[in-house]
Amino acid sequence: MDLEALRELKNEADTKVVLLVLDGLGGAPFRQIGPTELEKAATPNLDRLAVRSVCGLHEPVAPGITPGSGPGHLALFGYDPLRYRVGRGVLSALGIGFDLTDRDVAARGNFATIDADGRVEDRRAGRIPTERNRELVEILREIELPGVEVHVETVREYRFLLVLRGDGLSGEVRDTDPQEVDEAPLDPEPAEPDAERTAELVARFVDEARERLADHRPANGLLLRGFSKRPSWPSFPDVWGVRAAAVAEYPMYRGVARLVGMEVLDSPESTPEKLDLVAERWEEFDFFFVHVKPMDSAGEDGDFERKARLIGEVDGHVPRLLDLGPDVLLVTGDHSTPATLRYHSWHPVPVLLYSPRCRPDRVERFGERACLAGALGPRFPGRSLMPLAMAHAGRLGKYGA
Amino acid sequence: MDLEALRELKNEADTKVVLLVLDGLGGAPFRQIGPTELEKAATPNLDRLAVRSVCGLHEPVAPGITPGSGPGHLALFGYDPLRYRVGRGVLSALGIGFDLTDRDVAARGNFATIDADGRVEDRRAGRIPTERNRELVEILREIELPGVEVHVETVREYRFLLVLRGDGLSGEVRDTDPQEVDEAPLDPEPAEPDAERTAELVARFVDEARERLADHRPANGLLLRGFSKRPSWPSFPDVWGVRAAAVAEYPMYRGVARLVGMEVLDSPESTPEKLDLVAERWEEFDFFFVHVKPMDSAGEDGDFERKARLIGEVDGHVPRLLDLGPDVLLVTGDHSTPATLRYHSWHPVPVLLYSPRCRPDRVERFGERACLAGALGPRFPGRSLMPLAMAHAGRLGKYGA
Repeated sequence: MDLEALRELKNEADTKVVLLVLDGLGGAPFRQIGPTELEKAATPNLDRLAVRSVCGLHEPVAPGITPGSGPGHLALFGYDPLRYRVGRGVLSALGIGFDLTDRDVAARGNFATIDADGRVEDRRAGRIPTERNRELVEILREIELPGVEVHVETVREYRFLLVLRGDGLSGEVRDTDPQEVDEAPLDPEPAEPDAERTAELVARFVDEARERLADHRPANGLLLRGFSKRPSWPSFPDVWGVRAAAVAEYPMYRGVARLVGMEVLDSPESTPEKLDLVAERWEEFDFFFVHVKPMDSAGEDGDFERKARLIGEVDGHVPRLLDLGPDVLLVTGDHSTPATLRYHSWHPVPVLLYSPRCRPDRVERFGERACLAGALGPRFPGRSLMPLAMAHAGRLGKYGA
Repeated sequence: MDLEALRELKNEADTKVVLLVLDGLGGAPFRQIGPTELEKAATPNLDRLAVRSVCGLHEPVAPGITPGSGPGHLALFGYDPLRYRVGRGVLSALGIGFDLTDRDVAARGNFATIDADGRVEDRRAGRIPTERNRELVEILREIELPGVEVHVETVREYRFLLVLRGDGLSGEVRDTDPQEVDEAPLDPEPAEPDAERTAELVARFVDEARERLADHRPANGLLLRGFSKRPSWPSFPDVWGVRAAAVAEYPMYRGVARLVGMEVLDSPESTPEKLDLVAERWEEFDFFFVHVKPMDSAGEDGDFERKARLIGEVDGHVPRLLDLGPDVLLVTGDHSTPATLRYHSWHPVPVLLYSPRCRPDRVERFGERACLAGALGPRFPGRSLMPLAMAHAGRLGKYGA
């Protein structure tokens, strides 16, 4: 059921929903046998909770598809990532808290090293420090273009954000990043006729930037990609009828939450402090998205044991969350990041949905293999989770008489 | 696969399918732990049958969506309730057994209290008794409109049905019900140009009704909504190639069965008598929809024990049904009605599909938790059931060479 139809069914209720996202939660057995990271982790609290919950495994995007962080989170928020697509430029802007208007076109920029023949020598300009990035951004900010405002913002290290603001701009401009070294940067081509003027403005920006950066090797050039405009989607608070808060410290997750209309709180880094914040603001919101990052990083580092340990640490804070008395607590990930693969993966992600209104299944611990027998099923679309959560919170009305 | 495509595959066969619907069958544990109503019920016959069947749980509409009775049954009959939508006016007519023709536009009506300034004071006219409703309906029946027949029928309390019958009428007329008190009733606006004449006729009906009801406070006005025409859908007998009979005594279920083209038999109330009727008419039909209502009512009353007992009673009649030698017996519900929630719910509904042609799974009793391990899956779309039943009855041919 799509968001427009779900919005018609929303019900007012005085209930609270918590979505606890353990980034990259899903894993795989070390050396093909034995337990996964989650199965290895000591999770007595989640195991006890599983007995009173419905469990399963979700696929954030589609079977076999490895989700990026954006699509992974959109699915959790109920947005079909195949329908609701966000350009990288927009994600970049949201990620640093840059407030995009409807007149903006955003692109993700890399400072890059260009060789004497005009070819890309290093796509990341030797990973210059963020402080150097700031100095270079000051230089780029001096560029003026006719009829539009130019905004340039530091992201970090070699990454920056370019935003052109003006009337009639289009996001349909092709990347200048060739994605390979020893290739020359590409011209910003319009991908549709309406984008011609925008492409010309970008070309002019790129030319001016090259001149101004010429003496700043290794950051003597730049690459742009993901030109895009802010999409206008149904907002999360409107669709579900909730006051929604995001507790996340990383720009990407804050950005996606902001994109769907959540209020993004000023978040601490540690999980216990995040839960303190949730407790403090408990009365002000109906929905809390709490994002916990480190297990994903451990997975990407290939550190099986650390990932398992970090999951166990979060488990220790679960009673604290339950003490708040949520009507629904969803615990899952936005994708899998098996330490054995050191990368995001397509493997379905374990889910636990606890609610006093649920019909518990027979799953008695929280782990990938145990969840296979759960009531939610072994491989269901991630976007089904939010309607299920809202139903359990008494926030979705009856369809038809 | 949609009904048009399924129709292409239908196969003639001399086989019988019985769909036994236990209304509101699905439940939930009492006080969050222990068995559900069905798990508590004594169901030795269904349990024995489960061993030779395929089982699972279906979602009639979509994940998290609580089905009304109409959508719940449409799903069981193979119609996607999100695609095959019935207007509230039509449902209202079906609910009281009013036989709609193709020339009819139906609307759901409320008697309402209108204040001295012409604004809605009470959308339900103080919930007048049904007897009073009948008197007021007699008054409304005196209204004459040019070129159309006016039918007004009591539903109950403050609710009535309005049907205009004539050529060229449209259901695309907007509600006059503002859904709020202190607002004036809205004019019946045409939602498309073809509906202008219908909207004018409705406006005239409303004006005349106000005059005639003026002295009948609290029922001194009326509100209309859900203008709709009987939809023209692929018919059940045509899609599946079966002579289909409905055995149901409640108007709503009789109405939905009639809407999809089943022959609605004059049904007794008790389950054994219903099965007598099925036995009597066994040779005349290929498909029987048998509807059993009381467990839903027990669920809505919050009576866990009664619901369990009623399920057990139906179980006692299962051997009788099997004695008729159906090629397929489907036992399921149109939605869940957990006694703990006292209302329809989104929880998946257990299904048992028995056929000599099935490949039995390992489910050894009929209950929500047992069905999770079934071959049909823990959460599949209800509209898949009818193709599965017809396949098991040898009534669906091969797709492609």
